[in-house]
Amino acid sequence: MGELHGLFNPGRVAVIGSTERDESVGAAVTRNLLDSFDGDVVPVNPNAESVFGVDALDSIEEASDVDLAVVTVPADAVLEVLETCGETGVRNVVVITAGFGEAGEKGAKMERRLAEVAERYELNVVGPNSLGVMSTPIGLNATFGPDDARPGKLSFMSQSGALVTAVIDWANDQQIGFKDVVSLGNEAVLDETDFLREWGDDPGTDVVIGYLEGIDDGGAFIEAAREMSRETPVVLVKSGRTEAGAKAASSHTGSLAGSDRAYEAGFEKAGVLRADSVETLFDAAGMLAGQPLPEGEGVAVITNAGGPGVMTTDAIGDSSLSLASFEGATVQRLRETMPEAANLHNPVDVLGDADNERFQEGLEIVLADENVGAAVVLSAPTAVLEYDRLAEAIVETQREHELPIAVCLMGGERVQKPRERLNEAGLSCYFDPTRAVDGLDTLAGYARIREIEWTEPTTFDVDRARAREILRQVEAREGTRLGVEAMGLLEAYGLPIPESDIVDSADDAHRRAEEIGEPVAMKIVSPDVPHKTDIGGVKVGVELDSVRDAYEEIVTRTRNYHSEATILGVQIQEMVDVEAGVETIVGMNRDPQFGPLLMFGLGGIFVEVLEDTTFRVAPVSAPETREMIDDIDSAPLLYGARGRESVDVDGLVTAIQRLSQLVCDFPAILELDINPLVALPDGVSAIDIRLTVDPEKL
Amino acid sequence: MGELHGLFNPGRVAVIGSTERDESVGAAVTRNLLDSFDGDVVPVNPNAESVFGVDALDSIEEASDVDLAVVTVPADAVLEVLETCGETGVRNVVVITAGFGEAGEKGAKMERRLAEVAERYELNVVGPNSLGVMSTPIGLNATFGPDDARPGKLSFMSQSGALVTAVIDWANDQQIGFKDVVSLGNEAVLDETDFLREWGDDPGTDVVIGYLEGIDDGGAFIEAAREMSRETPVVLVKSGRTEAGAKAASSHTGSLAGSDRAYEAGFEKAGVLRADSVETLFDAAGMLAGQPLPEGEGVAVITNAGGPGVMTTDAIGDSSLSLASFEGATVQRLRETMPEAANLHNPVDVLGDADNERFQEGLEIVLADENVGAAVVLSAPTAVLEYDRLAEAIVETQREHELPIAVCLMGGERVQKPRERLNEAGLSCYFDPTRAVDGLDTLAGYARIREIEWTEPTTFDVDRARAREILRQVEAREGTRLGVEAMGLLEAYGLPIPESDIVDSADDAHRRAEEIGEPVAMKIVSPDVPHKTDIGGVKVGVELDSVRDAYEEIVTRTRNYHSEATILGVQIQEMVDVEAGVETIVGMNRDPQFGPLLMFGLGGIFVEVLEDTTFRVAPVSAPETREMIDDIDSAPLLYGARGRESVDVDGLVTAIQRLSQLVCDFPAILELDINPLVALPDGVSAIDIRLTVDPEKL
Repeated sequence: MGELHGLFNPGRVAVIGSTERDESVGAAVTRNLLDSFDGDVVPVNPNAESVFGVDALDSIEEASDVDLAVVTVPADAVLEVLETCGETGVRNVVVITAGFGEAGEKGAKMERRLAEVAERYELNVVGPNSLGVMSTPIGLNATFGPDDARPGKLSFMSQSGALVTAVIDWANDQQIGFKDVVSLGNEAVLDETDFLREWGDDPGTDVVIGYLEGIDDGGAFIEAAREMSRETPVVLVKSGRTEAGAKAASSHTGSLAGSDRAYEAGFEKAGVLRADSVETLFDAAGMLAGQPLPEGEGVAVITNAGGPGVMTTDAIGDSSLSLASFEGATVQRLRETMPEAANLHNPVDVLGDADNERFQEGLEIVLADENVGAAVVLSAPTAVLEYDRLAEAIVETQREHELPIAVCLMGGERVQKPRERLNEAGLSCYFDPTRAVDGLDTLAGYARIREIEWTEPTTFDVDRARAREILRQVEAREGTRLGVEAMGLLEAYGLPIPESDIVDSADDAHRRAEEIGEPVAMKIVSPDVPHKTDIGGVKVGVELDSVRDAYEEIVTRTRNYHSEATILGVQIQEMVDVEAGVETIVGMNRDPQFGPLLMFGLGGIFVEVLEDTTFRVAPVSAPETREMIDDIDSAPLLYGARGRESVDVDGLVTAIQRLSQLVCDFPAILELDINPLVALPDGVSAIDIRLTVDPEKL
Repeated sequence: MGELHGLFNPGRVAVIGSTERDESVGAAVTRNLLDSFDGDVVPVNPNAESVFGVDALDSIEEASDVDLAVVTVPADAVLEVLETCGETGVRNVVVITAGFGEAGEKGAKMERRLAEVAERYELNVVGPNSLGVMSTPIGLNATFGPDDARPGKLSFMSQSGALVTAVIDWANDQQIGFKDVVSLGNEAVLDETDFLREWGDDPGTDVVIGYLEGIDDGGAFIEAAREMSRETPVVLVKSGRTEAGAKAASSHTGSLAGSDRAYEAGFEKAGVLRADSVETLFDAAGMLAGQPLPEGEGVAVITNAGGPGVMTTDAIGDSSLSLASFEGATVQRLRETMPEAANLHNPVDVLGDADNERFQEGLEIVLADENVGAAVVLSAPTAVLEYDRLAEAIVETQREHELPIAVCLMGGERVQKPRERLNEAGLSCYFDPTRAVDGLDTLAGYARIREIEWTEPTTFDVDRARAREILRQVEAREGTRLGVEAMGLLEAYGLPIPESDIVDSADDAHRRAEEIGEPVAMKIVSPDVPHKTDIGGVKVGVELDSVRDAYEEIVTRTRNYHSEATILGVQIQEMVDVEAGVETIVGMNRDPQFGPLLMFGLGGIFVEVLEDTTFRVAPVSAPETREMIDDIDSAPLLYGARGRESVDVDGLVTAIQRLSQLVCDFPAILELDINPLVALPDGVSAIDIRLTVDPEKL
C-alpha cells in the first residue's frame, strides 16, 4: 500500500468551500462527489446550513475521520485551511484553488508557504491550481470537471487540467477506463515522481500514463521509474519537444524548459515509453493494459483482404517487429483447410469469401506456430462474415494462446458492437492497420525494457585528489574555463592521453620534444584562446629542428590575436597517428533537470554537419555505453567499415565510463569536451580537453 | 468532359448476369442499382423473365441506348459478352467477374484476349475482378458491396476491392462523402492513369485519392498527374513501401514490385502527395477538399487549454509550418480584449474560463494578422463554452477570412453535433491536435506543389553519334559491361573528364604520361575486372620514372587475379586534386515502371555507410537537379562547410543534367555509375565510369 493510499481511497471526504452557488467550483466538486462517491461527503461552509441537502459544518475542525479534504476556498484563505487540516489530522488535501505560482510573485510566495505548511504537518497535497483527483473503484470524483471517468486499469496524471477534462470526455466515448486520475496542478508538494511510486505499488493500476511539460528532479524521477517500470509500464507525453513547443511550455507553466535530449535520455534510462500525441498515448496504453507481451518479434497477419494485408506488412516493415516466417507444418495445415487461391504464407489471405469458420481456423493455425509471437487479425466487411462472431472467436482464441493480438475490423457502424466486446476482453480494435501494428510495436518496446538487466556503473580506481587539485587551478583565475592544462584530469581518471608537457621557453620546448620523440604536436595554453586552431595556435608534426621556431611562432600569433592574453605556456605533445584511427568527440553538459548528460559522436563533419550524436544521463554502465556508441549512424566506421581495421571499441567504452565517473564525482564540472578522443585499433587517446568549472562547487 | 463520362454518368445501365439468386454477385449489383440509381436499370438474363420485378432481357443485343454494362457472368462467358457489347454500341463495361490474370495462366490468357476485344471496339473496360464503380450525383452504385457511398467531392480509386468496401463503410460513419469510386480490379484496359485524367477534368471532383500497389507505366502516370495535379490535388497510398510489404504486394497482385525509391521520385515529379495509412489519406483529403490553401507558413494557435496548446506547438515544430509571429497591433488588440492572465502571444491562451464571445473575438483578431496564413482552433470542454456555438462561429469567421482552419474540439459525445456542422462547411474536426496540424501541413505541401514552375529539362548540344559509337563497343564483347574505356561517352555529352588515354605498352604509357604531365593515375582497362582497386589494378600519383614499372605491375596483377581476363590496356589519366574538392557519386538505374532513376550522393562513407542518397526520375530540369543535390544531409559539405571553399555547384547541376540527357537518349544504357565525379571549386571532373548496356536496344 502506497503512501498516497488515503488520497485515492478515502472513506470520508470534506469539501472546504462547498456551496450550491451556480457555476462555482465548490458546487461542481460537491455535486460530483455526492453523485457517485461510495463514502461520506462532508461539506464545509460557515455560511451554509447544508449543501445539496447534506448538513454542512462550519469548519473542518468539527469533522472527524476525514481522510481527504478538497479545498476550493479563495487563495488567501488556503494557508489557514491547510494548517487546520494539519492540526485536525487530515493527511490528504487537494487544493483546487488557483492564484498561486502561476499568478505572479505574490502567488509564488504563498505557494512556498503552502509547501512549508505541508512539510510541517506531513500533508500529501495535490495542487494548488488542480482540477482534482478521481479514483473509480470507490466512485471518487473529487474534481470540478463535467464527467466521471469509466472504471479501468489506467492511472493518469496530467500537468494540464484542461487535458484531463478533454481526455475523460473523449475516453468515455471510446470506452477507455481509468483507475486513478490526478490533475497535478502546480506541484507545490506532490509531483509526478510521487505518483509513479504510488501507482507502482498499486495492484489496481496496470499502466501509468501521463502528460508532462517538465520534471523538476530528473534524478529522483529516474530512480522511481526504474523501480517500478518493469512491473507497471509507464507511457508519457512530454511536450515542449521542439524549440517552439519548449518556449510555449515555459510560458505556460513558468518552468525552465530543459533540453529535450535530456528528457529523451532520462526516459530511456528510466524505462519510460514516450508518446508524441494523445492518440498514440492511448493506443499504447490500451495495448499495454489488455495484452500479454509478445513472444519474440515474429508477427502473423491473417486477413480476408489482400490490399489491407499489404499495408499491414508495410507497417510491420516500419516497426521493430518482423513478419513471422511460418513452420512447414503451419503452411501444410493451412493448405489442408484453406481454398486453393488462398495465400498460405504470411500475410495469410483467407480470401474475401471466407466465413467465420475459415477465418477462425486460419487464426488458430497461425497462433500455434512456434515462430509467431503476436498476431494482427485484419478484416474487411463482407456478406459472409459476421463481425460479432469474429470478435467472439478472437477473444476465445487469444485466451487459449495467450499471445497479443491487434485487431483491425475495418468499417464503420457495424464495428461498434464487436469493438465493445473486444474492449471488454482487453483487446484493442482499430480501423487503420498501421495503428494496430504500432500497438504491437509498443508491446515489443516494453518487452525490451523488461529484458534490460540493470547493470551498476563500474567504479574505477581513480586519483580523485589529483583531479580536485587540477580543477582547483580555476580558483586562481578570473574565468571558469580550463583547457589542455587540465589534461591531467583525464590521466587521474585513467583515460589514456599522449605523453605531453607544458613549457614556457623555446629551449624547454626543444628539450621535451627530444625526450618525447619527434615529430610532436604543439599547442598554445591560454584560457583566453578558446579556438586555438583558428588563430594558428596549434602545430602538428613538428620536427625537432623546427620546435624552437614553432614555439616562438605560436606565442607571437597568440599575442597578435590578443595582446593581453594570459599565456600559461605551450604544450608539447606526442603525435598520435590519427589516420590509423577514428576521431570521436565525448562531451558532457549539466542539464538543469537530469544532471550530467553525456554526448558521443564522431569528430569533424559527423557532429558539426550531420549532427550524428547520441546522449545518455550519467552515470552510465558498460552495456549502456556500448549501446550509446552503437546508436550513431556512423558507428560502422568504428567497427572497420570499408576494409579498415576496427578500433578498440572496448577501450572506448571504458574511456566514456571513466569520464562518466569523473563528471559524477565533481558536480563542479559544468561542461566538458574531449575533442578529439582518438579511437585506434589498439586503444584510445584523448588529445584535447575543454571544460568549465564552477569554483563554488569544488 | 472526360473520356469516361459515360462510365460515371450513364443514363441506362445493364446488368449482364443479373439474377435474384441469394448471395450472388449478380443479385447484389442489381439490388444496389435498383435501390438508388436515378437512371434505368436493365437486367440481362436469358433464364429469367424479370429480376426483382424489373423485366429482364435475354441478351444485351435487345437493349438500346445502354451506356454502361456491368458484367457478372462466369469468366468463360465474359469475352463473348464483351464482343456483343462492342457490336451493339455499349461503350463502358465494368467486368466484375473474377478468374482472370489473378487466377493463373489460363486466366491471364483470357485477360489478354479481353484487352484485345476492348481495343478492337474501343471499349472503356473496368476490371476484370473489380468490385464495381459508384458515382453519387446520380445515385449510381454499380458494385456488389454492402453500402452506398455518401455524396461528396472526393473521387477514390483502389487496386483493392476489399479496401473499397471497408473504406465506404467507415467513411459513412465518419461523414466522409465521395463523388466517384472505382475498384480498379486487374486493370486489363483502364488503369490509374486513365482515372487521373478523367477526374482532372471533372468539376465534381475536388480531390483524387487512391490506394495503389503498383503502377504499370510510370512515365504515362507522371505525365497525366502533372497535367492535372496543380488543379486537383492527388493523394495516394502506395503500399509495398517496405521490403516485406513489396513481397506481399507482389504475391497479392502478381505484379513485379518496383523500387519504392522510384515511386517516391515519380510521385514527387508528378506532384502527387503520398500518405502512409488510410487515416492519414483521409485526413489529407478532408483538408484538401474543404479548405483554402494557407497564405504563407505562419500558423496561429488559439486555445482555452494551455497544455494542449503546447502539444499543438510541438506538432507545428515537427511540420514544415511555423508558429506565426504576431504584429504588434494584434498583441495590442488581444491585450485590450483578453483578461490579464491570458497569453497574448502565439499560441494564444484565452484561458479556461473563456466563453464563446471571448474565444471568437480572439480568433477574429489573430486571423486578421498579416503574418497568419492558417490557424488551429483548439478547445477543451468547459462549463462556460458551448461547442455548438463555437463551431458556428468558426464556420462564419472562416468564410470571412478565407484562411484554412484546422479545428480540434477535444472531447467525446459532446463533439458529435458540432463536428457535423463543421464537416458540412468543409472543416475537419479532430480530437488530437497533432492530426490537426498534420492536416494543415498537407495543405502547405500542396501549396508548394502548385507553386513549382515546371521547367523543361535543358537540351544540351551533344555528340550523339560518338556516344552511340562508344556504346557499340559492347557488341564486340561477350559481356554487357563497359568501364573506363567508355569515358569518351561522358566527353561526348559534355561532362568534363581529365585528359586520359588507353595504352597497351609500357613505352606508350611513358610517352602519354610525359604528354599529360606527371604525376598520373593508371588503371587497368578490362571488362573482366569490376573492382579494379581491390586487385591492385589502380595506381595514383605515379611519377614519370615509375610509369613503365607501374604498367607492368598493373598488368601482372590483373593476370594473377584472372589469367583469362581480356585486357584492353591501361588507362593513363591526368591527376585530379581530389583533396581540393568533394567526391560525389552520380548513378542511374532503369526502373521497370518509371524508367531512368538518377542517384546522387557524396562518395565513400556517405553513400556506403550513411546511405545519404537522393533519387529523381530523368529527365531532370536545372531546378530539380539543384533540389536533388540539396536533398542530401551532407550537402553542406558542397557549399563549403567547416571553412572550406564551396565547390562549383552550378557545374555539378549541369553535369547531372547532361548525364540525364545521355541516359534518356540511350535506353540501351541499363545502369551507369560515375564514381567519383569530383566537384572542385572551379568545376567538376568525372574520374571513373561503369555501365551496363543492352546491345539489343542500341
